[in-house]
Amino acid sequence: MKLNGNFQNLEQSYLFVTIAQKVAAYTQEHPDNKIIKMGIGDVTMPLAPAVIQAMHDATEEQAHKETFHGYSPDSDGYPFLREAIAAYYKNFGVDMDASEVFVGDGAKSDVGNIVDLFDVDNTVLVPDPVYPVYVDTNILSGRKIEYVDANEANGFLPLPDPSRKADIIYLCSPNNPTGATYNKEQLKAWVDYALDQKAVILFDAAYEAFITDPSLPHSIFEIPGAEKCAIEFCSFSKTAGFTGMRCGYTVIRKELVIDGVQVSKLWQRRQGCKFNGTSYITQRAAAAVFTEEGQKQIRETIAYYQKNAQVMMDAFTKMGVWFTGGTNSPYIWLKCPGGMGSWEYFDYLLHNAEIVGTPGEGFGKNGEGYFRLTAFGDAQKTVEAMERIQKLQK
Amino acid sequence: MKLNGNFQNLEQSYLFVTIAQKVAAYTQEHPDNKIIKMGIGDVTMPLAPAVIQAMHDATEEQAHKETFHGYSPDSDGYPFLREAIAAYYKNFGVDMDASEVFVGDGAKSDVGNIVDLFDVDNTVLVPDPVYPVYVDTNILSGRKIEYVDANEANGFLPLPDPSRKADIIYLCSPNNPTGATYNKEQLKAWVDYALDQKAVILFDAAYEAFITDPSLPHSIFEIPGAEKCAIEFCSFSKTAGFTGMRCGYTVIRKELVIDGVQVSKLWQRRQGCKFNGTSYITQRAAAAVFTEEGQKQIRETIAYYQKNAQVMMDAFTKMGVWFTGGTNSPYIWLKCPGGMGSWEYFDYLLHNAEIVGTPGEGFGKNGEGYFRLTAFGDAQKTVEAMERIQKLQK
Repeated sequence: MKLNGNFQNLEQSYLFVTIAQKVAAYTQEHPDNKIIKMGIGDVTMPLAPAVIQAMHDATEEQAHKETFHGYSPDSDGYPFLREAIAAYYKNFGVDMDASEVFVGDGAKSDVGNIVDLFDVDNTVLVPDPVYPVYVDTNILSGRKIEYVDANEANGFLPLPDPSRKADIIYLCSPNNPTGATYNKEQLKAWVDYALDQKAVILFDAAYEAFITDPSLPHSIFEIPGAEKCAIEFCSFSKTAGFTGMRCGYTVIRKELVIDGVQVSKLWQRRQGCKFNGTSYITQRAAAAVFTEEGQKQIRETIAYYQKNAQVMMDAFTKMGVWFTGGTNSPYIWLKCPGGMGSWEYFDYLLHNAEIVGTPGEGFGKNGEGYFRLTAFGDAQKTVEAMERIQKLQK
Repeated sequence: MKLNGNFQNLEQSYLFVTIAQKVAAYTQEHPDNKIIKMGIGDVTMPLAPAVIQAMHDATEEQAHKETFHGYSPDSDGYPFLREAIAAYYKNFGVDMDASEVFVGDGAKSDVGNIVDLFDVDNTVLVPDPVYPVYVDTNILSGRKIEYVDANEANGFLPLPDPSRKADIIYLCSPNNPTGATYNKEQLKAWVDYALDQKAVILFDAAYEAFITDPSLPHSIFEIPGAEKCAIEFCSFSKTAGFTGMRCGYTVIRKELVIDGVQVSKLWQRRQGCKFNGTSYITQRAAAAVFTEEGQKQIRETIAYYQKNAQVMMDAFTKMGVWFTGGTNSPYIWLKCPGGMGSWEYFDYLLHNAEIVGTPGEGFGKNGEGYFRLTAFGDAQKTVEAMERIQKLQK
């Protein structure tokens, strides 16, 4: 019996462990602390009333033999939800069939599992800094990874280098962790490059609901040609507070054909083989997000987080701190003041302002010297956190 | 870009598609039919009242900021559920720590994803007939599969052949599709063989709740030494009607160490990388199964299905039809009467008794000539189905 040796090649994921240890140590020394947590990208507001009602209703269905739902008709989601998602894309001018939408239990699972579709012998292009799942899942399956530098010079929005070879390209816009968001022209450059390379773009749109600038694309399928080279992942986690609910979706257009094989059929087969669908109640809850009432309610919650982001942006602008995100994103990615390193600034903020954020270095080498703060917290605490940070500068 | 070429090696999964097509064609010709479906292994009874109450309560928690739950503390499940599962194993005399229990979104996902832990270069031993997921997930990752014959001669409970090499061994008891259940002596033979071969047993215990014979093992960990060579998968799907809820669990004991690596750590890392935990509400629902009230209620539903199984066993015994299962299992695996082939008997039952079952050949070559019927249906319909089948014989 041989274990998968690629596990040895994973870097130990010390980021959030180290953060937790440092916070615990500080708390022990300062039991009366008033720490404000702006590190982990989890939401804090409750589910929308329309979603809650749908969950109670679906629970009642499960309580009676006549209305009970067992296995999903197939692992790709109930038609009522696939159709609602396909209809949602019309808002972005994207016309797709419900059969091109695959419901899953969250973008992390789908982004992680999609690599099952590809040969080990492919070159993977990943921007740095980056959401660690893109890197780790490819290391686990033994693929070669190459990095594209995202940095202050390109506004953390790197563009393709036509001289580089690529088979699989990861893009995330609005970006986690940097909050930077590609415009249509920039995304078109990536789509053209992918078509030229015969590569596949894995496009993570988990934060699309935070886009406010009407000129920015919510979906890569707004770019002509993307249907032939891209797979899009999205989630209800940040859109509707579903981090504890577990629901996401993957869009693979029928035009995505590689070596004569429709890629959506492979995904369908992969999921049919290793997945049994998302919980019925969760799917009913997700469908409620798309009702008129649901849309109004989730928009209010998003506006609440966006107001937090505005408070943070105003503070850092006033302080003259360079940052990306905040606009079109729930993340603020700031340059650590005074040339501090990521972990140095982490310790500084924890000890001097009792604020916990995420050191950028945890997302890749280009993250060194940067810091991520989230707008998903409580409004009052966000205001107080910014007051504390501004007081520090004085 | 190269696709994973192993997809080409998967056999087309025509089984349930073909069944659906045949049923549709029959329905078109006979619009007034009274078809009784005993094919797919889905449950039909509603969730237990204690589970429903837990779901309503958890939904209310999600409706308020003070009690809202986002991401699970980690992807392996809430402590309240891991502890309840570990405590449940005490019923079988198995003493384990909650940290050895990993909660997932169903046994199918966990059984499918566990292969990520193993090198491609391992020999996989799979009984035939078998639950197709064991075979397909290994074909997808390019592993060599060898089959162990299960047949009438060994009561569909094959034992290890010490002369054969194996690295990964799949066992399912009570078995899907045959309903046959290993006793402790037989399981011990497999454990001893695995220890000798330094192989890992992947033990699927999804149907353990149907065991009535007190001498039969519910868990492979009832066998000394299994903690060093086995991984166990179980599910709430059949135990508590969770097919539409999505919750299962995988048990990896700390003693399972390969080449100095604790296998549970790899699973934790795999799940942390590609999974974000099971829905909070589903985990609360699952925990309610272990309350005194919950246990009493799920036992009533299991008894309902077991009564169906008894009705079926009585009928086939009376008819002199050879079968396994029924006792200790919700499945009856019968030898097609009159030497008919699996699909021949399928057509015969559909056209002459309007009963839909599953041809054994769909589970492997040794399934040819056999047929699976489930006890998960409605009690009255089960009685009627058996009356129709008995009438046929006359």
